[in-house]
Amino acid sequence: MTIRIGIAGYGNLGKSAEKIVNLQEDMELKALFTRRPNDVEASCPVYDLREAEKFRDDIDVLLLCLGSAKDIPELAPKLAEHFNIVDVYDNHHDMLAHCKRLDDIAKTHDKVAVVAAGWDPGLFSLNRVLASALFPESEQYTFWGEGVSQGHSDAIRKVEGVKMGVQYTVPNPEALQAVTEGHGKDFASNARHLRECYVVCDVDDQERIEDTICNMPDYFKDYETTVHFIGEDEFLRDHQAMPHGGKIMTLGRLGDSEHLVEFHLSLKSNPDFTAAVQIAYARAAHHLADNHQYGAKTILDIPISYISPLSFEEMIHMV
Amino acid sequence: MTIRIGIAGYGNLGKSAEKIVNLQEDMELKALFTRRPNDVEASCPVYDLREAEKFRDDIDVLLLCLGSAKDIPELAPKLAEHFNIVDVYDNHHDMLAHCKRLDDIAKTHDKVAVVAAGWDPGLFSLNRVLASALFPESEQYTFWGEGVSQGHSDAIRKVEGVKMGVQYTVPNPEALQAVTEGHGKDFASNARHLRECYVVCDVDDQERIEDTICNMPDYFKDYETTVHFIGEDEFLRDHQAMPHGGKIMTLGRLGDSEHLVEFHLSLKSNPDFTAAVQIAYARAAHHLADNHQYGAKTILDIPISYISPLSFEEMIHMV
Repeated sequence: MTIRIGIAGYGNLGKSAEKIVNLQEDMELKALFTRRPNDVEASCPVYDLREAEKFRDDIDVLLLCLGSAKDIPELAPKLAEHFNIVDVYDNHHDMLAHCKRLDDIAKTHDKVAVVAAGWDPGLFSLNRVLASALFPESEQYTFWGEGVSQGHSDAIRKVEGVKMGVQYTVPNPEALQAVTEGHGKDFASNARHLRECYVVCDVDDQERIEDTICNMPDYFKDYETTVHFIGEDEFLRDHQAMPHGGKIMTLGRLGDSEHLVEFHLSLKSNPDFTAAVQIAYARAAHHLADNHQYGAKTILDIPISYISPLSFEEMIHMV
Repeated sequence: MTIRIGIAGYGNLGKSAEKIVNLQEDMELKALFTRRPNDVEASCPVYDLREAEKFRDDIDVLLLCLGSAKDIPELAPKLAEHFNIVDVYDNHHDMLAHCKRLDDIAKTHDKVAVVAAGWDPGLFSLNRVLASALFPESEQYTFWGEGVSQGHSDAIRKVEGVKMGVQYTVPNPEALQAVTEGHGKDFASNARHLRECYVVCDVDDQERIEDTICNMPDYFKDYETTVHFIGEDEFLRDHQAMPHGGKIMTLGRLGDSEHLVEFHLSLKSNPDFTAAVQIAYARAAHHLADNHQYGAKTILDIPISYISPLSFEEMIHMV
C-alpha cells in the first residue's frame, strides 16, 4: 500500500524531502504546501500552506519541513489537528512542552505526531539513550562535524569587510583520542571542537577581520579558531555544499570491564539526510495511525521495525 | 519498583549476568538456575534448572544464559510457559522459526519472550535495519573484531602439537578504508577480515603446525591468516581475555548525495557486554508484560525507551 505524503515548507529541507520521497517505492508525493505557492515549481501540485487542511483526506502523513525558531511552534499544533505529522523540531529546551502540547492535540483528533525525527535531535537521541541504558556507569560525548554551522557562518558574514564566509565545526582529534582512551573528561566542552573559518573579504584588512572573528564572544572567543582567507572562485567551488555529521561516543563500565559504543554519521548533505530520517519516520507515523496508536511520539517511543519498508520475514533475515 | 531477575545457566554469560544485575539499581537478583547447583557458589540462591518453574511467582524476568546450539531450542519453549524470558539466541537460520514457536507459547501463557537480545544478533541487527531503512539504495557491511573467535580457537587447539591457541578476527584495514570510499564491493567477504593466531606448541614442529592451520578448509584456507608462535607465559599473560566488537557500516545514496552511517563496538569482555544488552532488554520485557503486550519480540519490535531506567522527562532531556 502506498503512503500518500505531503510536504509543508519548501526551503532546503523541503526540497530534499521532495527529492527523496520521489525515490521511495512505497510512497507517493501528493502535495507541497508553502506560503508562496506561485513562486514554486515542484514535482507535484503546490498549494498555499494556509489552505492545507482542505487536503486532509488526501494525505496520510504530512512532513513539516519548517523552521524550528518560529514556524514549528506556531504551525505544528494547528496542522496536527488535521494530519499525521512528522517534524524535525530541534529546540531542546522546549522539547518536553512541545511533546505534551502535540500529544493532547493528536490524541483529541485521532492523529499521530512524530516529534524531532532528524539526526540531532533524532538518531543521535536514540543512540544516547540506547548506549546509556546498557551501563550502570558511563560517560557520553557528542561530537559534531566536520560540518557547516549555519549560526556561526552567519556571524562571520556580519563582520565588516567580509564578503563570503563559512564556518566548519570539526571534532578535535585529540579529544576523540582521549575519549577512546578513557580520559575524555580532560577536555572541556569548548575544547572538544575546533572552528575552521573560510572567508572571502572585499577590503584589504585581514588582520582586523581575523581578530574580530577570533574574539567574538559566545561564537569563537573560547574556541580554537582558525581563519583561512581565500579567493571568491575557491569559495564558490569548494564551500557551497552542506556537509555535516558527528559522533556519539559512550564509554561504559561493567564492573571490571570497559566498553566503547559509537555511532557515527558522515553526511554529504545535511538537509538530504535529515529529510531521509523524517521520511523513514513517516512510515512509522502511518503504521501507528493504522494501529490507532495516537498521540505524540519521539524516536525513543517507536520500534525500529516501524520505519522499515521491509516485511517481518525480510527483517528477521537481517537479525 | 524493583525488577526481580533470575538467571538460567552459569557459564561465562551467566557469570557476567550475575555481576551486572548486581550493579543495577532497579533490579534484584533472586535466583540462579543450573544443572549442577551443588557445584556453584553464587551471590544469590542457586537451584536446579529442572525445578525452575517452582519459582515462577518470585521472578519477573528470567535471563536465558544458555548455549544456542542445543539448550536454547530445547529449553526456551519450556521456560517461556512460566516466565518472561530474554534470550541471546544466535542461530540466524533458525531465528524465524524460533520467534514463531516462542510467540505462540508466550501468547498462550500471557508471557513476553524477548529473542536474540545480544549484540550480534541484537544491537547490530537494530543498526542494520535502521540504517537500511533510511536509504532507497545502500550497501551495508558488517565487520567483526578485533576479537576472539571461539570456533576458530577450538579448531587451532585440535591441531596435533598445539598446547594452547587463540584466534583473533581482525577487520582488514584496507577493506574498512574501501567501504568509506564507496568501493567496499572490491573486497570479497573473506577478504574483509584477517585471522591472527597465537599458538603455544609442545613439539618442535612449527612449520607443519602453521601449514596445517593456514590450509584448514572453511576455517582458514581462504583467509589471510597469520600464525604467531609464543611462549606459554606470554599466552597466559596476554591472551586470556575475551575482547570483541565490530562495526556496521552503511553507505547510502539519496539521489546525488552520499552518506555513511556507522555503529561501532569495542568490547573488553564479550560476555559482559552481551549480558549488559540482555539485562537492558529485561527492563523492556518487564515493561511489556506490565502492559499485557505478550508474545515474542525482537530488538526491532521494542522502543528504546523501554530499555532505559530513566523517566520520560529524563529521556526527553537527552533528545
